[in-house]
Amino acid sequence: MSVLYQRPVRFEEVDAAGIAFFARFFNWCHEAMERFFDGVQGGYVGLITKRHIGFPAVHVTADWKSPLRYGDVAIIETSVLKIGHTSATLRYVLTRASDGVHAATIEHVVVASNLLTITKVPIPDDCRALLEAHRVTS
Amino acid sequence: MSVLYQRPVRFEEVDAAGIAFFARFFNWCHEAMERFFDGVQGGYVGLITKRHIGFPAVHVTADWKSPLRYGDVAIIETSVLKIGHTSATLRYVLTRASDGVHAATIEHVVVASNLLTITKVPIPDDCRALLEAHRVTS
Amino acid sequence: MSVLYQRPVRFEEVDAAGIAFFARFFNWCHEAMERFFDGVQGGYVGLITKRHIGFPAVHVTADWKSPLRYGDVAIIETSVLKIGHTSATLRYVLTRASDGVHAATIEHVVVASNLLTITKVPIPDDCRALLEAHRVTS
Amino acid sequence: MSVLYQRPVRFEEVDAAGIAFFARFFNWCHEAMERFFDGVQGGYVGLITKRHIGFPAVHVTADWKSPLRYGDVAIIETSVLKIGHTSATLRYVLTRASDGVHAATIEHVVVASNLLTITKVPIPDDCRALLEAHRVTS
Repeated sequence: MSVLYQRPVRFEEVDAAGIAFFARFFNWCHEAMERFFDGVQGGYVGLITKRHIGFPAVHVTADWKSPLRYGDVAIIETSVLKIGHTSATLRYVLTRASDGVHAATIEHVVVASNLLTITKVPIPDDCRALLEAHRVTS
Repeated sequence: MSVLYQRPVRFEEVDAAGIAFFARFFNWCHEAMERFFDGVQGGYVGLITKRHIGFPAVHVTADWKSPLRYGDVAIIETSVLKIGHTSATLRYVLTRASDGVHAATIEHVVVASNLLTITKVPIPDDCRALLEAHRVTS
Repeated sequence: MSVLYQRPVRFEEVDAAGIAFFARFFNWCHEAMERFFDGVQGGYVGLITKRHIGFPAVHVTADWKSPLRYGDVAIIETSVLKIGHTSATLRYVLTRASDGVHAATIEHVVVASNLLTITKVPIPDDCRALLEAHRVTS
Repeated sequence: MSVLYQRPVRFEEVDAAGIAFFARFFNWCHEAMERFFDGVQGGYVGLITKRHIGFPAVHVTADWKSPLRYGDVAIIETSVLKIGHTSATLRYVLTRASDGVHAATIEHVVVASNLLTITKVPIPDDCRALLEAHRVTS
């Protein structure tokens, strides 16, 4: 029940060590989360710009297993580990498309927030239904 | 009468060719412009967040002369070429700090804008005075 | 004979003025150039990582006509204006997908370069053929 | 025994929710780590470009407590929690300069690596001495 997002490492996303810069992985996961929210009417754009609701991060854990380089494509598999009243935990498993090597796993705790006040709000029903539909055990 | 801003090339600002990515030079010039506007009360931050006035780009020309690499420091010399009713042309000359090699020159035409409507407005008096104070000929 | 590349403005590509940051347009054009080079065997990745040939920028001009915001999609139309022995001029016309409004036009002079030495080389034959196939007049 | 690094939130580091994008915090911590390594001869630049040794991330945990906005300055306090044979754990505590509010805490496990092979190596003696000098308990 996970959602897949395919993302090439771009030309300017490597660092002076010649590998994809570690902070970039969080950008990619955020893109994967936005694709995930395509499952609600209006998508993440609609949430942010029309409903003024967002899902800022409050906690992240990340484990890197193998570097990615320019020319690699990451397959990002998004699923949902936990759903609370105002928060949810998403998990992103990144593998290298060419050979299936595990590149990284990231867990991302987000809190439904009113963007005008940056205060937490209950997860909206349509978002909750979407999260539930992609919940996995373990 | 130019303003100097010193900026190291950061670890993640190189590209897969091993040199500072060309688009990054515009980030650096924008930083130099923000330093330039430290010359008005409240700085660029005050303009943007309190007065809701910004200086979006309408035209840019850039010439690269020599690549920069991780570990290089760019010295960015900001001056003003033209000042109109609503627009101004800034020039940034980037040299490599270690040896004075000319890395790039960028010209940046900006338009004073009301950020709530994204429509042009006359350059505010304090900004105009600052621009005039750093105007150069040629 | 132009090549089209569609690119949504991402969540983190806006600035404190609430519009897509001007330097980001150059990132997008570089992505469009990479898509353009999909027309040679191995693509831009192959050029960079296997043949050690790249096309660094030596000159850019950009004109912004209308801001883009989060949720907007840019359609980037890439064509070729000039082809020399070692250099070429690409043009990118960016329009907003939702209504066809002209957002920006960027011209980008690149020089075929050996990336090991960062010295210019003749444009390789396959790249030249690709460039010729997308050349436009004016 | 921590090292302080002061970092303004830049104009283009906010997202469509109007706050500093969560992934940017990792960029800032990497900058703080580079400043930390100024304590060895040649700094992080020398490690990377001359000695071909780097400290890629293998694990990160991050907790956000309060958003940062354009105009805020983060004070990043870097200390060392653990030092092993090849790996070390750095901790970055980010506070908002204007009022001392706790913005985020990030823990960053890095592995000393040969950048030519991306394989782990013992932490070099000078780096180990620097890490030891900034080790804290808890």
